[in-house]
Amino acid sequence: MLKTSFPSRAVIREVGLRDGLQSIQTILPTELKCEWIRRAYEAGQREMEVGSYVPARLLPQLADTAEVVAFAKTLLDLVVSVLVPNLKGAERALETGAHAMLVPLSASHAHSLANLRKTPDEVVAEIARMRAVRDAAGSKTRIEVGISTAFGCTIQGEVPHEEVLRCLQAVLDAGADQVGLADTVGYAGPGAVRELFEKARRIAGDRLACAHFHDTRGLALANVHAALETGIERFDASLGGIGGCPHAPGASGNASTEDLAFMLDEMGIETGLDIVALLALRADLVRWLPNEMLHGSLSRAGLPKTFTVRSPNDSTADIR
Amino acid sequence: MLKTSFPSRAVIREVGLRDGLQSIQTILPTELKCEWIRRAYEAGQREMEVGSYVPARLLPQLADTAEVVAFAKTLLDLVVSVLVPNLKGAERALETGAHAMLVPLSASHAHSLANLRKTPDEVVAEIARMRAVRDAAGSKTRIEVGISTAFGCTIQGEVPHEEVLRCLQAVLDAGADQVGLADTVGYAGPGAVRELFEKARRIAGDRLACAHFHDTRGLALANVHAALETGIERFDASLGGIGGCPHAPGASGNASTEDLAFMLDEMGIETGLDIVALLALRADLVRWLPNEMLHGSLSRAGLPKTFTVRSPNDSTADIR
Repeated sequence: MLKTSFPSRAVIREVGLRDGLQSIQTILPTELKCEWIRRAYEAGQREMEVGSYVPARLLPQLADTAEVVAFAKTLLDLVVSVLVPNLKGAERALETGAHAMLVPLSASHAHSLANLRKTPDEVVAEIARMRAVRDAAGSKTRIEVGISTAFGCTIQGEVPHEEVLRCLQAVLDAGADQVGLADTVGYAGPGAVRELFEKARRIAGDRLACAHFHDTRGLALANVHAALETGIERFDASLGGIGGCPHAPGASGNASTEDLAFMLDEMGIETGLDIVALLALRADLVRWLPNEMLHGSLSRAGLPKTFTVRSPNDSTADIR
Repeated sequence: MLKTSFPSRAVIREVGLRDGLQSIQTILPTELKCEWIRRAYEAGQREMEVGSYVPARLLPQLADTAEVVAFAKTLLDLVVSVLVPNLKGAERALETGAHAMLVPLSASHAHSLANLRKTPDEVVAEIARMRAVRDAAGSKTRIEVGISTAFGCTIQGEVPHEEVLRCLQAVLDAGADQVGLADTVGYAGPGAVRELFEKARRIAGDRLACAHFHDTRGLALANVHAALETGIERFDASLGGIGGCPHAPGASGNASTEDLAFMLDEMGIETGLDIVALLALRADLVRWLPNEMLHGSLSRAGLPKTFTVRSPNDSTADIR
């Protein structure tokens, strides 16, 4: 009955500095963001979304993105990503030399209009312009499009798979280097994850490179488990599941980095991460954000007595 | 890459009335226990562990087990289970006509001594005596043994798979009708779940009939997902994840019934459960236990806008 194979390695991209911090009220000072990045890097994280190039008046929490990108770029082999909602943001990403620009495209027409004041097709056209500008600049900055509300939408309700896949094809045609699927509002379960990632794989092949889950209804890790079986090897997560869900007060936000790292470690999937160091960093994040609620289970329960500490990049695959 | 199949149906056995209530301070009055059972039954639950035949001085929370069993037996087709730690308990289960007696056997020698003051092999011998008494009485009460601490132990640490499987074989030889594996302390992850359930299946075949996970480190639902792939179709869970973990203050207890029901529903696995009714019952449980912390994510986040209400025993397998 068991014929699935799991990847031997997986990447957890830290998105707490963007998806997390933009969803809370507290503005974390630039020096603490840099401290977070440095410590996460020391704990083995090699991909981070560190901010967003949107007008500061819209997201004052992320107004220092250019400074944060500049610091993050000083860390060897760290892939520095930044969210860009439009061409202007893409130009800033190119100017500041981010390694990847993450472009959200909402497959929900209603969400797209509410969030970006553009239809999905207008976003596709913007992505084509981003690609042209990137190529004209001779830049290597990767363009990665995350199809948001891919599993449903709090405004529109159902988002048909056909529409998600149509958007996926359109952004690939427009020049996206990589694509991912995002469960922006926490509607996904393992059934839909398996089905939609399989379908998306048939369209995007190896350019399907990321899964982004929220733990709103407690299913983020089960969803990761299902996505791993479709060949996904990169997951967005945020330390302490920071961010919450604006649509469901008190509910969890992103998959929590430390819980996800623990699960992958248990499965013998190498992440290169030092979970003890991540937990120590999370404890400091709690201190830095005294008025915010953090999430995740490992930090409350502690590591099991049977846990084997592995140094980052230890390639021992089987700990039991 | 995807060759696994999932079962078309699964059973969630409610264990909150035993595993949940024995782990908290509040003593729930008998009439509220009966109300819980009645409402859970109306929501479609057909298997419940309703108490434990242990001395009342040890577990005053469950001192009314015989009364609760008597009530539960009035509900048509409800499979009424009761935990029994020893022969005396088994005799009471037979006297009161419980449909199943659940016998815990800890694969951790240290945990077995601490919990039952018996070695695993002494428990095996007791199970053989239970089987003899059951057969002599001409009773149909099922004997189900749960191998506890199967994935590790807070006292002993690692519990070797060989020892778990040795215990499994021994209890089958001693006359257990069914066996299950329990992650008593919340150490299991999908890797170990898959490996150990596959090994156990080779020994117990169809008599391997249950998985019991705790959500201590947030992995209960991912563990269910992994166990489903090894052919497990019955899962213990407790409403509101009631129970906590005595070894990790603040941490979650059993997998929460409503979150698990939601996940299975999303996967198109029929449970016969009315999730809306379960959430309403959980809200009352919160009222009945004002000093206890309940867990689970669905109750905070609410059902997705895309959720389709199905009547109990609706056989429509695919909701999307």
